[in-house]
Amino acid sequence: MIPIDHLLGFIEEDAPWGDVTSDAVIPDVVCRAEVHAKAAGTIAGLAEARALFEHYGVAVRQRIADGKSVSPGEALLELEGSAKAILLVERTALNIIGRMSGIATKTRSCVETVRTVSPHVRVAATRKTCPGLRVLDKKAVELGGGDPHRFTLSDMVLIKDNHLAVVPLPEAIRKARAGSLYRTIEVEVESPGDAVLAAEAGADIVLLDNMSPAEVRGAILALEEVGLRQQIIVEVSGGVTGATLAAYAGTGADAVSMGALTHSVENFDVSLTILKGVQSFRLE
Amino acid sequence: MIPIDHLLGFIEEDAPWGDVTSDAVIPDVVCRAEVHAKAAGTIAGLAEARALFEHYGVAVRQRIADGKSVSPGEALLELEGSAKAILLVERTALNIIGRMSGIATKTRSCVETVRTVSPHVRVAATRKTCPGLRVLDKKAVELGGGDPHRFTLSDMVLIKDNHLAVVPLPEAIRKARAGSLYRTIEVEVESPGDAVLAAEAGADIVLLDNMSPAEVRGAILALEEVGLRQQIIVEVSGGVTGATLAAYAGTGADAVSMGALTHSVENFDVSLTILKGVQSFRLE
Amino acid sequence: MIPIDHLLGFIEEDAPWGDVTSDAVIPDVVCRAEVHAKAAGTIAGLAEARALFEHYGVAVRQRIADGKSVSPGEALLELEGSAKAILLVERTALNIIGRMSGIATKTRSCVETVRTVSPHVRVAATRKTCPGLRVLDKKAVELGGGDPHRFTLSDMVLIKDNHLAVVPLPEAIRKARAGSLYRTIEVEVESPGDAVLAAEAGADIVLLDNMSPAEVRGAILALEEVGLRQQIIVEVSGGVTGATLAAYAGTGADAVSMGALTHSVENFDVSLTILKGVQSFRLE
Amino acid sequence: MIPIDHLLGFIEEDAPWGDVTSDAVIPDVVCRAEVHAKAAGTIAGLAEARALFEHYGVAVRQRIADGKSVSPGEALLELEGSAKAILLVERTALNIIGRMSGIATKTRSCVETVRTVSPHVRVAATRKTCPGLRVLDKKAVELGGGDPHRFTLSDMVLIKDNHLAVVPLPEAIRKARAGSLYRTIEVEVESPGDAVLAAEAGADIVLLDNMSPAEVRGAILALEEVGLRQQIIVEVSGGVTGATLAAYAGTGADAVSMGALTHSVENFDVSLTILKGVQSFRLE
Amino acid sequence: MIPIDHLLGFIEEDAPWGDVTSDAVIPDVVCRAEVHAKAAGTIAGLAEARALFEHYGVAVRQRIADGKSVSPGEALLELEGSAKAILLVERTALNIIGRMSGIATKTRSCVETVRTVSPHVRVAATRKTCPGLRVLDKKAVELGGGDPHRFTLSDMVLIKDNHLAVVPLPEAIRKARAGSLYRTIEVEVESPGDAVLAAEAGADIVLLDNMSPAEVRGAILALEEVGLRQQIIVEVSGGVTGATLAAYAGTGADAVSMGALTHSVENFDVSLTILKGVQSFRLE
Amino acid sequence: MIPIDHLLGFIEEDAPWGDVTSDAVIPDVVCRAEVHAKAAGTIAGLAEARALFEHYGVAVRQRIADGKSVSPGEALLELEGSAKAILLVERTALNIIGRMSGIATKTRSCVETVRTVSPHVRVAATRKTCPGLRVLDKKAVELGGGDPHRFTLSDMVLIKDNHLAVVPLPEAIRKARAGSLYRTIEVEVESPGDAVLAAEAGADIVLLDNMSPAEVRGAILALEEVGLRQQIIVEVSGGVTGATLAAYAGTGADAVSMGALTHSVENFDVSLTILKGVQSFRLE
Repeated sequence: MIPIDHLLGFIEEDAPWGDVTSDAVIPDVVCRAEVHAKAAGTIAGLAEARALFEHYGVAVRQRIADGKSVSPGEALLELEGSAKAILLVERTALNIIGRMSGIATKTRSCVETVRTVSPHVRVAATRKTCPGLRVLDKKAVELGGGDPHRFTLSDMVLIKDNHLAVVPLPEAIRKARAGSLYRTIEVEVESPGDAVLAAEAGADIVLLDNMSPAEVRGAILALEEVGLRQQIIVEVSGGVTGATLAAYAGTGADAVSMGALTHSVENFDVSLTILKGVQSFRLE
Repeated sequence: MIPIDHLLGFIEEDAPWGDVTSDAVIPDVVCRAEVHAKAAGTIAGLAEARALFEHYGVAVRQRIADGKSVSPGEALLELEGSAKAILLVERTALNIIGRMSGIATKTRSCVETVRTVSPHVRVAATRKTCPGLRVLDKKAVELGGGDPHRFTLSDMVLIKDNHLAVVPLPEAIRKARAGSLYRTIEVEVESPGDAVLAAEAGADIVLLDNMSPAEVRGAILALEEVGLRQQIIVEVSGGVTGATLAAYAGTGADAVSMGALTHSVENFDVSLTILKGVQSFRLE
Repeated sequence: MIPIDHLLGFIEEDAPWGDVTSDAVIPDVVCRAEVHAKAAGTIAGLAEARALFEHYGVAVRQRIADGKSVSPGEALLELEGSAKAILLVERTALNIIGRMSGIATKTRSCVETVRTVSPHVRVAATRKTCPGLRVLDKKAVELGGGDPHRFTLSDMVLIKDNHLAVVPLPEAIRKARAGSLYRTIEVEVESPGDAVLAAEAGADIVLLDNMSPAEVRGAILALEEVGLRQQIIVEVSGGVTGATLAAYAGTGADAVSMGALTHSVENFDVSLTILKGVQSFRLE
Repeated sequence: MIPIDHLLGFIEEDAPWGDVTSDAVIPDVVCRAEVHAKAAGTIAGLAEARALFEHYGVAVRQRIADGKSVSPGEALLELEGSAKAILLVERTALNIIGRMSGIATKTRSCVETVRTVSPHVRVAATRKTCPGLRVLDKKAVELGGGDPHRFTLSDMVLIKDNHLAVVPLPEAIRKARAGSLYRTIEVEVESPGDAVLAAEAGADIVLLDNMSPAEVRGAILALEEVGLRQQIIVEVSGGVTGATLAAYAGTGADAVSMGALTHSVENFDVSLTILKGVQSFRLE
Repeated sequence: MIPIDHLLGFIEEDAPWGDVTSDAVIPDVVCRAEVHAKAAGTIAGLAEARALFEHYGVAVRQRIADGKSVSPGEALLELEGSAKAILLVERTALNIIGRMSGIATKTRSCVETVRTVSPHVRVAATRKTCPGLRVLDKKAVELGGGDPHRFTLSDMVLIKDNHLAVVPLPEAIRKARAGSLYRTIEVEVESPGDAVLAAEAGADIVLLDNMSPAEVRGAILALEEVGLRQQIIVEVSGGVTGATLAAYAGTGADAVSMGALTHSVENFDVSLTILKGVQSFRLE
Repeated sequence: MIPIDHLLGFIEEDAPWGDVTSDAVIPDVVCRAEVHAKAAGTIAGLAEARALFEHYGVAVRQRIADGKSVSPGEALLELEGSAKAILLVERTALNIIGRMSGIATKTRSCVETVRTVSPHVRVAATRKTCPGLRVLDKKAVELGGGDPHRFTLSDMVLIKDNHLAVVPLPEAIRKARAGSLYRTIEVEVESPGDAVLAAEAGADIVLLDNMSPAEVRGAILALEEVGLRQQIIVEVSGGVTGATLAAYAGTGADAVSMGALTHSVENFDVSLTILKGVQSFRLE
């Protein structure tokens, strides 16, 4: 669960001096409200929205779990509490649900595409997330059935072309292993020959970058020929789109990673409605 | 300019314990690198990327100003400095440029659409930004030629349907004005009658929400009939798309606001390449 | 409501390593205490003091609402809880109440002076607040019946003499309006001619700075003569004192702003007394 | 010196989203400006203002040291740099100088009053400072020639009436000494008998609270009679005003502390003027 | 009590992206667990550990108070709550208890050694604490019966050899006293002559540094000869070990300070065990 | 490199209100000083100390690189700058060097012990670090030639006895792999049978906990017998001491991890001396 302070920072961003509209306009009334979906997809971010409303004393009834499919019009959260508190949190909560559900929905769709050709291939995210929001972006990928991949530059080794511009591939892998026995080592390559080189040098994962499905298939065959396919994980990345995803998933690779899961998000439409006629004036 | 601490927080998010790959693999060499566009559009985020690289001691030559149009392959930043520093900042810098340029590019496109029918109508953003990133999202809108609209709940009054579920429209405006003489007051309405009511009650701006272009035109005519059109700004919002934008811009409204400018961003593709053969080993 | 973290920062300022006196001297007893006024005035800061005591587990009964008038000796808060907790919070709570009530009391007094000559003229604050404390200073002004004016440099445009040293007045207004349709634009001028110039250029508010009441009257007449008085708000500022306030309020201006409301505060005297004889030893 | 981050927090308070006026209105010009005094007094806060301007790349020439006397019209700081940077920092810098100089001026005045009757008696501050600003308030007291007294609840022991409502005086002193050998122990008393009791129990300082000058004299005589005057410091506090200060200073006490030094500050008037005709357009 | 935010920072250090093991492996079950000692000593840190567990919704029964002696195998805390929450907090809680109990145990042992030769001599800590952890290190010293000495450079004056390399001793003391009447002044000296000089100049405490027990005795005699022993506190420091502690404590000094109490800590072994067979699946 | 803000937090901990001794006693002089070792060992923390001194404007000449061996009396850093700045940073810098060098020295000693029996076996750290200081503790381990192991709960999966109290071993491994393809999976076991079970279930690393060297050897043989030794890394932990380390290192395991590297640190003695006779008074 994301620390509440992280989430409260978003409220403070949206209301550094309070909500001047509600403060001036809204009396101290208790009311009921509802957050509902306006589209179909995989919902995410309800836990975060709920934590925010509850922090401000609003009672929340969550109607569906994060990660589930929802239909347009479906109720997601029922709220009861101070009208001012509900209006203060509204936009931040909807922005979180909208982005996270957008990511989860796209991820789920990609996973389903992949499942048409393989029961095991993973759909993985990258580090191309919104700055400051990676923890939520990665969580949304998981809720959509995807693999979050590494979180940061600190948690596994990924040797890319820009490293290899400075250090030869085998030396890079050797140095990485010497640094620590405990970190997964992945190497990005652009040819079957380098894929074999990486496997021979002891990489745990090879990332086949910017290859066509046929080229990917060729690289995997090359690994099989030298008997190293079983001991290395094969990830494919680079320009994978909805149109080509199934083809890549059918190459025999273990995972397909897509920056677009998090860098180009279609917002999932949700809205909050205050239910008329049910508010009651709070007694002093 | 965004405070550097805000930007450094994004590096810390990406490398809480340093970059284990570079730390293990990359020697202490100085190298040159280049950031270039991989698509056409309006560039943004170069100032922020530059500040980050410079903070880590990398010399930067900025080839083009933020807000300008760029072509695929065009060089944006030339870098010279520690290979480790360049690799540490790379992903964060690209994520910022990618998102901000995506927003600027879409905004510019919408502004150009609007200009086909009107020289004055504004394209405005909303508060549907990425949590924690509003300052950059709004800046990108401005660089694309859009109007940032209010930044937060604290800087102007915007009375929406959820407020009006609790307080009648004229009372809401009266209370808002009584709160402060200095804040712009905007009211969201869904009918011509309410638009007139808002203008009569002294609103500075009326937001026509979820109306068709014809309905917008009708509301503006209603304001003209009662002689209140000159003293109120008319904004249109709700479900405006690329396909309908020109139609809305031609209604006579002063501004069209679109959540999609910032809530559904198509990443602008940029990449960083370390230039081979030019690095030199740093003397101790 | 001010975020509790902001308030807790004040406790941490006062007790970075705890309260060495209470820690050494005070046993684990529960006691009752009372905060009462030692002067007459408009009370403010009780909500903040209450939040602090409650955060540390002290039960609070608030005897009067913020913004109300109090008399010397009047009870403001009744407390029951750990003696150590009460003593830890004491000074911070009293400093907040003392400053905020001082501001509210002075503001109320100015509002009453103004009411002797006009039912509508506002008494407004400025940005001359205590660094780090603006949110409380502005809230206290509101509790005293004043207008908080803009909170920060970010929420409205105020073109002052130092801007006009660099850019001509009409160009400054035009540029500000081009920046955003949504921000109130105010211009500070020092002559009737410039007041008219500002109104003609489309300013929302004109600030008549450092003029005598007669000069203010002259500027307003000039605006009336050109038929622009109705469409612009007139604020007066600069050297307004208690002695001259009524004269300025009688000029026909809409608001009088006074830096002294927040930059030169007479502390409102309050104290906290632990009630003897009622503490009971807490059972382990 | 105050950490720059602390000071930058004040800029962020004043411009969370930048300065919308300068951003829209002011071109990228370099200009010169001057901060000068508008009243006579003891100046303070120039070091802090200077650090802020320099942080934003403005060259500063400080014309006089903090703690010195200044006359109306006297130049304090000469500035040269980006007009936008100067305008961004202006209000925060002036607010700091205004408050700190107000405190230093009042303190200096009190010290001079005391010097008319005694060459040694100290004028001391209390913890009645502006929340969040204690470090600056205390520094200003020192620059005015006063004694800052304890900074916080953590750095010395001060047993007050509210402690003595719970624990008897001798037991309180004994417990405090048992807690640490290293902390100064002060006790607030309201009678000569308690002053003697405190001295006998080993207090380092006795605070005579809310006594008339004659009563203070009586308490000091009582200490002399029992031969304990030499080993204890005598501080006087409670309702000391400008009118009574000399009388208290003449009682033979070592220090007089006054909450009003910091809780009721008369702002010292300073202003910043951009020098016309000298700005030059910055080359790209 | 340490602010909970300070403690939560340690959890965030240990789990910046959550606990990937528990998140993947552990179902949403409630279980019981126990923290018990694996060595004998003086326990400390239970209050901090408890606060952390409770923050995450784990019910805690504390079996023994901080500062008490415990035996190997003794239960310290009984826990009941979410297995994920218990596992998230486990290592941080144990690290805190382990370090603080290690410090308390060593301090207690030193105090007992000193008690064999003197009922009054204090065992004091220094500023040689773990960076970022001083508040816990000092608290642990107090729980072990030691004197925390000054917390920081801000709360008392301690003139050391490096100061005296720049300023003569009497001048240093005079300047320190002129700065404030309220701060304890201690001077570090390395000879009997300087000890007398310090006492004559009005120091409150003299720190005899790097002397043998015989030299310490000599310095104390020198103070007695000039009649200044009663008015000054004598602290001994520098290279005191367990082997020499009793000898130093028998010299007639008031306190012996030891950096090793906090700079070279033997971890106190504690562990947490989830009790098998008692967890129950949580109902949705 | 550790962010400077992290290090500056330690200065703020040590001097929340400045250094009252230096502020009162030390004139504005420039002086030279030297940090030198007082013991033999592996030095660490010089980079951090240097960054701190340089941040405060002190020029630093580093005489030896972190990770190198030093002798008693050897000069480590030469400093030249403001005496006040040097004294402000002194204790924090020495505390960092003292702890980090203590860890590096112990680690180096353990690595050397291991090298007597094996050229490859790693000496690894654990998460038993000082709360808030893990980044420095782990870096010191690396400088001593050790393996830092995982940094946090977020960067690899380590299934321990407390997890296995809730979930069976094969299910735990299966779930962890399903969570992400990219994370190293380690399992703690206490018997040869469970080691084989873990290897069969696909663990990357098996941690043999609390076994004697003979038992470790037995577990490794069991893995060899089933042909799984080559595909799994074997780590040994639990009660390894200097006396038994060589025996464990000779069992054929790949790594031996020791909590004591960081939880029970012997401070490495360093000191800072201001060089007399060379300071010069700074001109105003």
